[in-house]
Amino acid sequence: MADRLWTNARLATMTGPALGIIEHAAIACEDGVITYAGPAGNAPPARETIDCAGRWITPGLIDCHTHLVYAGDRAHEFELRLAGASYEEIARAGGGIVSTMRATRAASEDELVAAALPRLDALLAEGVTTIEIKSGYGLDPGSEARLLRAARKLGAARDVSVTTTFLGAHALPPEYAGDPDGYIAQVCDVMLPAIAREGLADAVDAFCEGIGFTPAQTERVFAAAARHTLPVKLHAEQLSNLHGAALAARHKALSADHLEYLDDAGIAAMAAAGTVATLLPGAYYFTRETKLPPITALRAAGVPIALATDSNPGTSPLTSLLLVLNMGATLFRLTVDEVLRAVTVNAARAIGRADAIGTLEPGKQCDLAIWNVQRPAELVYRFGFNPLHTRIRRGK
Amino acid sequence: MADRLWTNARLATMTGPALGIIEHAAIACEDGVITYAGPAGNAPPARETIDCAGRWITPGLIDCHTHLVYAGDRAHEFELRLAGASYEEIARAGGGIVSTMRATRAASEDELVAAALPRLDALLAEGVTTIEIKSGYGLDPGSEARLLRAARKLGAARDVSVTTTFLGAHALPPEYAGDPDGYIAQVCDVMLPAIAREGLADAVDAFCEGIGFTPAQTERVFAAAARHTLPVKLHAEQLSNLHGAALAARHKALSADHLEYLDDAGIAAMAAAGTVATLLPGAYYFTRETKLPPITALRAAGVPIALATDSNPGTSPLTSLLLVLNMGATLFRLTVDEVLRAVTVNAARAIGRADAIGTLEPGKQCDLAIWNVQRPAELVYRFGFNPLHTRIRRGK
Ligand SMILES: [Zn+2]
Ligand SMILES: [Zn+2]
Repeated sequence: MADRLWTNARLATMTGPALGIIEHAAIACEDGVITYAGPAGNAPPARETIDCAGRWITPGLIDCHTHLVYAGDRAHEFELRLAGASYEEIARAGGGIVSTMRATRAASEDELVAAALPRLDALLAEGVTTIEIKSGYGLDPGSEARLLRAARKLGAARDVSVTTTFLGAHALPPEYAGDPDGYIAQVCDVMLPAIAREGLADAVDAFCEGIGFTPAQTERVFAAAARHTLPVKLHAEQLSNLHGAALAARHKALSADHLEYLDDAGIAAMAAAGTVATLLPGAYYFTRETKLPPITALRAAGVPIALATDSNPGTSPLTSLLLVLNMGATLFRLTVDEVLRAVTVNAARAIGRADAIGTLEPGKQCDLAIWNVQRPAELVYRFGFNPLHTRIRRGK
Repeated sequence: MADRLWTNARLATMTGPALGIIEHAAIACEDGVITYAGPAGNAPPARETIDCAGRWITPGLIDCHTHLVYAGDRAHEFELRLAGASYEEIARAGGGIVSTMRATRAASEDELVAAALPRLDALLAEGVTTIEIKSGYGLDPGSEARLLRAARKLGAARDVSVTTTFLGAHALPPEYAGDPDGYIAQVCDVMLPAIAREGLADAVDAFCEGIGFTPAQTERVFAAAARHTLPVKLHAEQLSNLHGAALAARHKALSADHLEYLDDAGIAAMAAAGTVATLLPGAYYFTRETKLPPITALRAAGVPIALATDSNPGTSPLTSLLLVLNMGATLFRLTVDEVLRAVTVNAARAIGRADAIGTLEPGKQCDLAIWNVQRPAELVYRFGFNPLHTRIRRGK
């Protein structure tokens, strides 16, 4: 006997290569886990039955790349830049990532939670049931750990699964100016061991870029992650090609993210390693990037593609995953099927949770988004519109 | 004695050339009209006082260019195009504006209202208090009138001011294929007189474009509007330069809209006539246009700039005016001040209502948007986020 049965529904299960559509369908749940997803006629009995009136059900959406926890904002910097201020003037006015770092270091754990909650609520209102949150605005041992504790606390404050990623190698803090190797040593030998000991991180990430860290420094971070048996991911090829994706693939990374400047060798390495390509059209849009990620080649190579908000104060102050769906199609020319798989099954894989979430099939966690749409394409086609009817997490 | 007083607020009044900021401010209202907007210390007594806790108040937002009323959607066409279908295949699958026309003709007035309500509600949730709605998907006398009646009905169904625009000259209906002049005759001699008689339109618009109507046909529509003492506006220079903006300016148009291909002569004519430039970044984004409207020249000439959603099923299935603010800044490089004036004071002017709405000053309708932000720039900087605290229309 199932606990709950949603019937008279249409399912986009995301099983198989496309949307895995089942019309006239039902989905049953017991103890928070899906026990049946198939034709309504064969559904098991249940204690409670919900008539979906023909609505579409997808897996609960997964935002697999965010920097949701930080203090302050960069609205004034944005305003100054539009008014024609130079980078020097903006730096003098306290702009840039250092301003976010300072505000974040000054904030308590509860203040970080409070600052992030409206952003989290905006995502949940659109059917998000799982979110990845990175550190990277603390940049010292205490602040990075506090940020990750705040991220974990968000998962208790709201009905959402939070996975955390340690991104100490996000930017060089001012106290290490001129000594990036010294900072990487602190990341690897001080921060990561403490964070791993406290169980604060589910994965480790780095920013491999001219304005970030070198491939050699990235590799040291990956080696440290391996010592703590934590999987890795990488901000790679966003502004230039440092062959970060291939490096990530060599380390069996869950994902390489951004990828505008990815080359064919990187694509081949990712395909061979099963590393997910997480594309971030919000940052592409907000920074007015014109170089597109190599979508056609990624598709041809069979690299799984995920999409995420990259929610962050500097390059993507965005808290709508539905808008990312539209941008994935409009800006990146992904198909409707690709876009919807990118925030469900492939996003689950990008955070190492493909065993538990991302599809509608028996054994998976019963995380559902129920939509007031006539066809799944409407979720992608409209923008600035939220047709969510109900969000279900773990069957409730 | 005022009816209501909002105090402990910060005002962006939109009076003067910029945001017209007043800190430590209050705003009072009597019979739905603003009687005071200024320093809190000098505010009049009121029967009810609301403490705004330092929140920002702007005029209620105005969406001055929409095609909100239609039946059906074009999600499937969008999906087919992304999957690589040719225009012919899409036409065979029933795509294009004709598909929206057919669905709209088949819908009753109440069905049109019901279809538009979720779109309207999305806009109102972001602080919109006035919306312009165009006809143009009926394209026959009965259907155009029915669409405009549905638009009027939306203003009764929700707490919002609706201004209506007759856009019979939107596209050529199939029954007039090969005879655009015959259709324009019907627009001018049959549709417009009936619509004017019933008081269904506040303005008249046309689509002056290679795929729309010629300048000569547009001029006939404008002449007919003048016979009914209705002001005009124009879809001009969206895909090519037919000198539509200059034509509109000669007819003292309230606004010329889109304007990607506007030239210097058009800008000079608009500046001289006081015609508002209504820019539509949602359509620019969705159609992947790359030619930017001539922002710098418009700014230099002192042409007032408005922004709107252009909400429509074909080229801008968008129902977030806040997203338009971000797109105005990110894509068009408008400043924060320009963007906020573009959806308040200048949008009011674009629909001929500058006497009544668009600023916070005595004598204007008390339409307010109260925001959970630290500074007005936040309304522009974030995207996919709604910080509205309260929406007030006519003081309530
Ligand atoms: Zn990132
Ligand atoms: Zn339009």
